[in-house]
Amino acid sequence: MDVLSTEWIGSIAGVLTTVSFLPQVYQAWKTKSTETISMPMLIMMTSGVFLWLVYGILINQMPVIIPNFFTLLSVFVLLRLKLKFK
Amino acid sequence: MDVLSTEWIGSIAGVLTTVSFLPQVYQAWKTKSTETISMPMLIMMTSGVFLWLVYGILINQMPVIIPNFFTLLSVFVLLRLKLKFK
Repeated sequence: MDVLSTEWIGSIAGVLTTVSFLPQVYQAWKTKSTETISMPMLIMMTSGVFLWLVYGILINQMPVIIPNFFTLLSVFVLLRLKLKFK
Repeated sequence: MDVLSTEWIGSIAGVLTTVSFLPQVYQAWKTKSTETISMPMLIMMTSGVFLWLVYGILINQMPVIIPNFFTLLSVFVLLRLKLKFK
């Protein structure tokens, strides 16, 4: 496979995993219900994505910084919703 | 920050985001309940992680292949549980 196709696959992968938490945030916010969402999952995901962001800043790589910045926003909002609607 | 510390931060980030779905899989399996987990989130996450794995194989990078292989297993099991326990 050529380099351009490989880069496209990586970019689509990045967009999908970055925006995937948005429908979860929307559902949690709309239904005000989060009881089957695992709290340890949210804590590990928030810490992990935060460290990815720090890592991206340290190596100065925008393709690591940008998706992880948006994913961090989503999982942080989800964590707040989880704490609000137990 | 030195290179070794930066690599450690990246590694910890990778481990955290990779294993974060495990408590979610465990909770869904134990409680047999997944109604507040968003189906669009699971579909996007499964497709996205699958494409990350394909991308990792294409660029032949084990640090991309290994975490995404394990994350794919977790999200796939979660998707199966979501379909089973509506």
